Amino acid sequence: MVKESVKTNSLDRLKKIEGQIRGIQKMIENGRYCIDIINQITAAGKALDMVSLIVMKGHLETCVSDAIQSGESKEKIDELIDTLYKFIK
Amino acid sequence: MVKESVKTNSLDRLKKIEGQIRGIQKMIENGRYCIDIINQITAAGKALDMVSLIVMKGHLETCVSDAIQSGESKEKIDELIDTLYKFIK
Amino acid sequence: MVKESVKTNSLDRLKKIEGQIRGIQKMIENGRYCIDIINQITAAGKALDMVSLIVMKGHLETCVSDAIQSGESKEKIDELIDTLYKFIK
Amino acid sequence: MVKESVKTNSLDRLKKIEGQIRGIQKMIENGRYCIDIINQITAAGKALDMVSLIVMKGHLETCVSDAIQSGESKEKIDELIDTLYKFIK
Repeated sequence: MVKESVKTNSLDRLKKIEGQIRGIQKMIENGRYCIDIINQITAAGKALDMVSLIVMKGHLETCVSDAIQSGESKEKIDELIDTLYKFIK
Repeated sequence: MVKESVKTNSLDRLKKIEGQIRGIQKMIENGRYCIDIINQITAAGKALDMVSLIVMKGHLETCVSDAIQSGESKEKIDELIDTLYKFIK
Repeated sequence: MVKESVKTNSLDRLKKIEGQIRGIQKMIENGRYCIDIINQITAAGKALDMVSLIVMKGHLETCVSDAIQSGESKEKIDELIDTLYKFIK
Repeated sequence: MVKESVKTNSLDRLKKIEGQIRGIQKMIENGRYCIDIINQITAAGKALDMVSLIVMKGHLETCVSDAIQSGESKEKIDELIDTLYKFIK
């Protein structure tokens, strides 16, 4: 369950990223230079990574913290590491 | 200048990614589980990486190949490595 | 403070990675094919990422859990997210 | 076949990375703080990425350029993109 501040922050960023993705489509349609296109894709990818970190921070502050306080952290930590594994590979 | 086959392929993928980004916004609005959100962001990021590779392949086959054939590859190779550097860091 | 099981596991992996790095040096000295060299570097990099995840898991199970249980998690979570940020960018 | 300048540059860097990997093992043996260990692993990983880029640049300047000039670039470009794919995923 995402915290309210995380919600607003992530949604703002995702809306901007959606715009970036549309911008990249326009660059391709207009036959823009490949390198400029790739650099824009890289920027959108890094912006997505930031959203992941923001959601992950919220997750640590809520779900993971709750699980640890109720002494049932094992599953939550395994799940988080598994998610990080997918994220980085 | 992007090749026609690269254009179609990239645009199809970007349209799908745009849909994924909208889907992630809906997940956040609906208060879905953080880990599921992060996994979806990871999937969209990997799909973006694939578009980069497709555009990069087209770039190698056209601009970089032309530059190498006319004996003026230095600038193009430096630019490509610089772009890869931004891409991976 | 690293847990004993994390210590043994990480040290085993790092010793293997050290061997991989020496192997890559030998490949370069022997003039091996660039693509084979890059693929070996990629393998060593992924092995390093795994060590990061193992240490990070241990960190969540000990330091972060302790901080959360004593109600002082803010600093630890900020630090972890900051570390992840460096890790992925 | 790696160019002489690429050889020297890569070997210098790999020797330094080998030292970093040994340093990380010592940090773990001495029970140093997890976050400091992870940050050192991140630094070594980024140093490895730089070696990949250096070898890749050499590869573009020699093998890929030769293949393009002799009109047989398809295989080399496919192979390079395949290597990049492994590198980034």
